[in-house]
Amino acid sequence: MSSSKATPVSPLAPAIYPDLPAVRGVGLATAQACIRYSGRTDVLYVALAEGTVAAGVFTRSKCPSAPVDWCRDALHGGSARALVVNSGNANAFTGLRGRESVARTAEIAARAAGCEAGQVFIASTGVIGEPLDAGKFEGVLADCAGRVDPGADAWAAAAQAIMTTDTFPKRATRNVRIGDTSVTINGIAKGAGMIAPDMATMLAFVFTDAALPQAVLQDVLVAGTAKSFNCVTVDGDTSTSDTLLLFATGRAGNDPVNEAVDPRLAAFREALDDLLIELAQLVARDGEGARKFVTVEVEGAEGDASAHRIAMSIANSPLVKTAIAGEDANWGRVVMAVGKAGEPADRDRLAIWFGDVRVAREGARDPDYSEAAASAVMREPKVTVRVDLGLSSGRARVWTCDLTSGYIAINGDYRS
Amino acid sequence: MSSSKATPVSPLAPAIYPDLPAVRGVGLATAQACIRYSGRTDVLYVALAEGTVAAGVFTRSKCPSAPVDWCRDALHGGSARALVVNSGNANAFTGLRGRESVARTAEIAARAAGCEAGQVFIASTGVIGEPLDAGKFEGVLADCAGRVDPGADAWAAAAQAIMTTDTFPKRATRNVRIGDTSVTINGIAKGAGMIAPDMATMLAFVFTDAALPQAVLQDVLVAGTAKSFNCVTVDGDTSTSDTLLLFATGRAGNDPVNEAVDPRLAAFREALDDLLIELAQLVARDGEGARKFVTVEVEGAEGDASAHRIAMSIANSPLVKTAIAGEDANWGRVVMAVGKAGEPADRDRLAIWFGDVRVAREGARDPDYSEAAASAVMREPKVTVRVDLGLSSGRARVWTCDLTSGYIAINGDYRS
Repeated sequence: MSSSKATPVSPLAPAIYPDLPAVRGVGLATAQACIRYSGRTDVLYVALAEGTVAAGVFTRSKCPSAPVDWCRDALHGGSARALVVNSGNANAFTGLRGRESVARTAEIAARAAGCEAGQVFIASTGVIGEPLDAGKFEGVLADCAGRVDPGADAWAAAAQAIMTTDTFPKRATRNVRIGDTSVTINGIAKGAGMIAPDMATMLAFVFTDAALPQAVLQDVLVAGTAKSFNCVTVDGDTSTSDTLLLFATGRAGNDPVNEAVDPRLAAFREALDDLLIELAQLVARDGEGARKFVTVEVEGAEGDASAHRIAMSIANSPLVKTAIAGEDANWGRVVMAVGKAGEPADRDRLAIWFGDVRVAREGARDPDYSEAAASAVMREPKVTVRVDLGLSSGRARVWTCDLTSGYIAINGDYRS
Repeated sequence: MSSSKATPVSPLAPAIYPDLPAVRGVGLATAQACIRYSGRTDVLYVALAEGTVAAGVFTRSKCPSAPVDWCRDALHGGSARALVVNSGNANAFTGLRGRESVARTAEIAARAAGCEAGQVFIASTGVIGEPLDAGKFEGVLADCAGRVDPGADAWAAAAQAIMTTDTFPKRATRNVRIGDTSVTINGIAKGAGMIAPDMATMLAFVFTDAALPQAVLQDVLVAGTAKSFNCVTVDGDTSTSDTLLLFATGRAGNDPVNEAVDPRLAAFREALDDLLIELAQLVARDGEGARKFVTVEVEGAEGDASAHRIAMSIANSPLVKTAIAGEDANWGRVVMAVGKAGEPADRDRLAIWFGDVRVAREGARDPDYSEAAASAVMREPKVTVRVDLGLSSGRARVWTCDLTSGYIAINGDYRS
């Protein structure tokens, strides 16, 4: 998590990075505050137009970072005017000093933005346990506030500034209608290790010019998170800092939508879900040391929640992940991971596929299984593992990556 | 799991392997049945004297192997005359053919032992999903039965024959009194990967000449398992084959002990617990790729069960395990693992030690913490991580190993 040494870009990085259009009411600036890294940007400042509403979901860790506590409180107000993100230091497990540091950062940002401290949202990512010197933001945030920019380059710089062990920036955009009004949704994310199902990537920020009340915004965000960030895992380790914030500036001027069940929201929900899935998948594609992007599909479970737990048991199994790294269609390890999930399963009804190749059925190896065909599937950079439990109609889909010696090298190489 | 290539002996292997004394009523023989390996023994046959009583605990996997199902049934009878163990093939997820294979193995063994098939216990370890040809036992088991031996060399050969990816054989012995009578307890185990808290190592077999009724034997075994094999994890992956069997031949001729609470059992329980802990620790010491033996101690939790779950969350965290591999006193990752366990914890009361070095207290870095002292602790082959939650008096202790590129190499190297 703390390394700043150059790591090659993940082989699973997207071929094309989208240019993000402007979102009315959002301006961005980045800066070098030398919080931990030198020679690169490590601060993102986002100015949000008056009237911006915020929604958020956070880590379920019992030991959350000081910024997570701050954002949870700030959400009670519901109004947002500025977002400050730093990379290099997570300000997590820093005790009273951590809380003071967040409060001071908010004050500095509030002065720069001309707003209340409670309208400032803060996220930090990087090393845990090191005090974060908020004094480093003094001057920097005011400077940022003076040069915020709504353009594509500013969005690209924003995605870059929040990276830690990420090997590529993560950004996505959607355009959709609410009623007759066109609205934009932009998102950026960061995260590569310490990614687990209990919530988002470490950090993701989504901005829209839609006009939506906070209760509605929170509803669509929670629903979208369940289908996206809560379905991605790299190593099963849940961060103390996981933060997903959604800001709506209202500047698109769409007709008021006051109920979460309003049918005019259907397209917006779909576009948001889609964008969140894209960002979540980008996180799995940048999993530390990843060489394979893995989709795990479980069907025929007792229920959807049961299917999800089984899918996560498969996606988090070191033996399954190392087998995929080794391009080994080792379905025995998939059986093991199904068995250990503790969910209803009947060994003698299980069927397992790698890609389109059914390797097992009715509790034994598929007699028609071709090792050559399975090997061809395993050599691809994208691998799908599918399990049919044959019990009922519960289903789930999660995304992960393989476990390679690259993960060990990034997280645990012997210090020289 | 399937490799038979030579792996160097774990640096954590014991310096001395004990010679196991005879256990009255137990004779052992090994053989080469070429089930998967060639040039090594892969079958263990144990003859048990008439009147031998069996107890057992098994994997909690919902997809257990065919031999596990067989042993669970055989325990209902409670009488044991023979144990057959093979390495190389786990006979797991082999459907109807797997069940037939176990039944035929039991018949062959019963003929060799001159007993009922229901008095034969069977365990298999190795690759999952491959049909096991029980015909390979034909002739082999009868030959074994004709040359069983009670001596130390036979015990050493037994521990060797059941190995798969193990880099060293695992055996232990204790001598203890029940009343005025001296009884012996011998144990052998195997396991290196796919080791997780839901039960034992993959396979462990314990033999005693004590005379104990089955209910008492089962009681002492279950109690001992909770303190030993259920406190060890290598990779959090629970095997489909985990089996721990305890056989009591009764040939020591101790006074009858009919109640599990009989105080004359105290020394026996203590010796058995101690032997089971020794075997469980040997498994962690032979964790695939392990270079550090890690003890995780949690205290101050809401209760013992809560402490156990937190300890397991730490012991199974890839980020904690890679940090230990890297000799990095990264207590931030310990905080993360405490937080993700989902158990009651208060960030601001946490204290963390590596060895005797307190690195964090009251939710922040210990101001007296010496990086040099912590680094010295981390360079040792044995590392203890201690966490005090500061809430109540719940405590737990578990054992694991670090996560190195050796684990990846054993389980996932790209197939060439």
